[in-house]
Amino acid sequence: MPAVNTVIKEKKSIHEEIPITKILADFVVHYDSASLPKAVRHQVARGLVNWAGCAIGGAQHPAVLNVLSALGPFMGAGHANVLGRSERVDALSASLLNGISSHVLDFDDTHHATLVHPSGPVLSALLALSQFKKIDGATFVDAAALGIEVECRIAMGVCPAHYDVGWHVTSTVGGFGAAAAVGRALKLNAQQMAWAFGIAATQASGLREVFGTMCKGFHPGRAAQNGLSAALMAQAGFTSSTKIIEAKRGFARVMSTEPHLDDTIHQLGEKWVVLDNAFKPYACGLVIHPVIDGCIALYEMKAFRPETIFKMNLKVNPLVLELTGKSEPTTGLEGKFSVYHSAAIVSITGFSSSKHYSDAAVGRQDVVDLRKKISVEIDKNIRVDEAYIEVILSDGKIIKHHVDHALGSLERPMRDEDLTKKFMDLSTDVLPDSQARQALEKCWKINDLSDAAIVGSLLSKT
Amino acid sequence: MPAVNTVIKEKKSIHEEIPITKILADFVVHYDSASLPKAVRHQVARGLVNWAGCAIGGAQHPAVLNVLSALGPFMGAGHANVLGRSERVDALSASLLNGISSHVLDFDDTHHATLVHPSGPVLSALLALSQFKKIDGATFVDAAALGIEVECRIAMGVCPAHYDVGWHVTSTVGGFGAAAAVGRALKLNAQQMAWAFGIAATQASGLREVFGTMCKGFHPGRAAQNGLSAALMAQAGFTSSTKIIEAKRGFARVMSTEPHLDDTIHQLGEKWVVLDNAFKPYACGLVIHPVIDGCIALYEMKAFRPETIFKMNLKVNPLVLELTGKSEPTTGLEGKFSVYHSAAIVSITGFSSSKHYSDAAVGRQDVVDLRKKISVEIDKNIRVDEAYIEVILSDGKIIKHHVDHALGSLERPMRDEDLTKKFMDLSTDVLPDSQARQALEKCWKINDLSDAAIVGSLLSKT
Repeated sequence: MPAVNTVIKEKKSIHEEIPITKILADFVVHYDSASLPKAVRHQVARGLVNWAGCAIGGAQHPAVLNVLSALGPFMGAGHANVLGRSERVDALSASLLNGISSHVLDFDDTHHATLVHPSGPVLSALLALSQFKKIDGATFVDAAALGIEVECRIAMGVCPAHYDVGWHVTSTVGGFGAAAAVGRALKLNAQQMAWAFGIAATQASGLREVFGTMCKGFHPGRAAQNGLSAALMAQAGFTSSTKIIEAKRGFARVMSTEPHLDDTIHQLGEKWVVLDNAFKPYACGLVIHPVIDGCIALYEMKAFRPETIFKMNLKVNPLVLELTGKSEPTTGLEGKFSVYHSAAIVSITGFSSSKHYSDAAVGRQDVVDLRKKISVEIDKNIRVDEAYIEVILSDGKIIKHHVDHALGSLERPMRDEDLTKKFMDLSTDVLPDSQARQALEKCWKINDLSDAAIVGSLLSKT
Repeated sequence: MPAVNTVIKEKKSIHEEIPITKILADFVVHYDSASLPKAVRHQVARGLVNWAGCAIGGAQHPAVLNVLSALGPFMGAGHANVLGRSERVDALSASLLNGISSHVLDFDDTHHATLVHPSGPVLSALLALSQFKKIDGATFVDAAALGIEVECRIAMGVCPAHYDVGWHVTSTVGGFGAAAAVGRALKLNAQQMAWAFGIAATQASGLREVFGTMCKGFHPGRAAQNGLSAALMAQAGFTSSTKIIEAKRGFARVMSTEPHLDDTIHQLGEKWVVLDNAFKPYACGLVIHPVIDGCIALYEMKAFRPETIFKMNLKVNPLVLELTGKSEPTTGLEGKFSVYHSAAIVSITGFSSSKHYSDAAVGRQDVVDLRKKISVEIDKNIRVDEAYIEVILSDGKIIKHHVDHALGSLERPMRDEDLTKKFMDLSTDVLPDSQARQALEKCWKINDLSDAAIVGSLLSKT
């Protein structure tokens, strides 16, 4: 007879025998609010500040304008806010629009282990719900924490194969996260929560092929809307599978070639994955961050003037070229997917700004000229938050710099004051300064609010 | 140097080299309405009659009621009809609701080669659009034909592997079909149409794991709504990939293990796949159909009275027992999956009706008594649309009947009058008889209407 542990291990390898969906549903429904660690509560506030800033900053993006123009005539009456804007719409539409605006700048949070950007789907759905049904701040924080936790953990059970095959994981798992958060706030029972996961899963979609187009930003918005719908439908008795994640033809097996669902529930409620959620200081692909850090550092060393650069060689992780290898970007959006553009413009200006990813900035002659002098070498032994930069000057001098961990990595996270600064930068030209500061204060104090809805109204134009 | 044909063949095997998405977009945008064969126009009218009947018949289903209850508070103002009901909602919500109601009875059309139920997503989106923006009948027919054609052809390029792995193909390709139909009606240009396909594809979802729950009916509704949104967004300039179907990380490769996209464009515009779309005469599993046909034929021969039956033996394809082998059904839903129940009730009444699949009908004592006298023998040499029936009477007399092709098969399609009868049966207890006849007439004459919107209002309660 084998030892007990062996039996458990064998069972675990057969996914259908572990009721993952039920375990997660029970966790979200029954988790004791009083047990939620303070650090997790604070992390939710950090995530809210970061998400809100991104949404305000992205509120004028053509992707948002086009959706408002195309789908606005069909939106419902309601008083849910569109962040950074003056429209009032039904909560489902608000969740869509805020999910889009929070991602269009590619500036939102990232769970590095899976590449999920977790807050967009979860907070867009939850804040919209709070403007339909009263939710106090502490409940909002519980719900957001559990939503993000479930979202990232489901991704952990299907990635990296899920992402590699072509799924935009933020989009596919985002609906689960939104459904969990909203379901917790709505006080669904465990069966309803399992149905909500089923309804979210059967809408799970989002192809990486659309990266570089407006559809990328659309993904977290649609995921928020789908997850919010799923929880509301489950509450009304709309049925679904209760084993959607682990079933033979369920989410994990259909959408990943190598699911490993043990990881989804490993140390559930003990280790909080939400604490591994990182924030980005720069408004472009995360894999470019170490290069930007390096270019800023070199600029600040005043070792050379940009016009004296003869050649710049970057040694980076292979993902840098795979995700941001556009050597000749022509639009602001393409600029975000060009390590060449970021390295060039930061080397010239000495800092990184969301304004660097406009069409005009990408077309600047000095930037284009420097871009052409940059070459990229990949090395799989270099981590994604690491980079080596070598600059060869016209006089033959060679300058080398190594970035061990980029700002915004787990080893070197953004501090609260960095997040405040980022929020205020992004709200410039959108909200009056005094209102932005007031909104910011409410976000930091989300846990103590008697009604979370105030956050939505303060983040929007009157 | 190889022959030209060889070169083309080699190229075709590399999907990315055939611009499938562009070819389909061009086809939908530029196809000359005057060339559309009359048979195709008539087939669209047949599909409309069938779809409308199913939607009216399904309008009271709990899946529809629950979505109305859960999402109704968020729906927009509008005058789009919910078929078989009195609500007026925005067109996007109408497309969702009508797509659901048209599928919940499992009575809608089927493209047998792929198992797509094509009309739900396409007609739900298009009719809803017609109530937002005026569309004349001929344009409606063009758009519907092109939408269904594209929908089925995309399925042909990814099935059967796509379905086998766990995707509900009606759900996944439905958005393409709806986007094509709506895009044609909106007169999108070719680039916008390609974007619309991209936006639809990145929402493509629907897992077979949810079969047997309310989510199955949800699928064509969400596909309709997603496809309608996609075309509207593309019209407003919302960008997406323009090679979403064939790209390395596009729809076909991510969602099928064995794509063969040559089939998608084979004889495009010459052979109309929409003509292979079949309709079901009976409101139960397709594999029971030949048995029902046989029982109706025996009844009409007046060879015996039902109470004189001593034993009835059915010889059928093995799928009949695999899919509909419930020998003691207790609910209407279970009745649909019981060849015994269907054979019994049809032998007694002489006809098949959707009303035969209520809890009451399944519990009828005379039906239960006869059901017990029925035995089923399987034989893999008998086709799924074929059946042998042998009846042994109390006096020892034996009567035999063979059904070669069931009604509703491609070899023996439902006649227009059969479709009319089906529509009228489904509209009983929903619409006043005179209104139902008027609606039916407009559906048959869809091609000649100056405004297609009238169909929606006549199919709904005032």
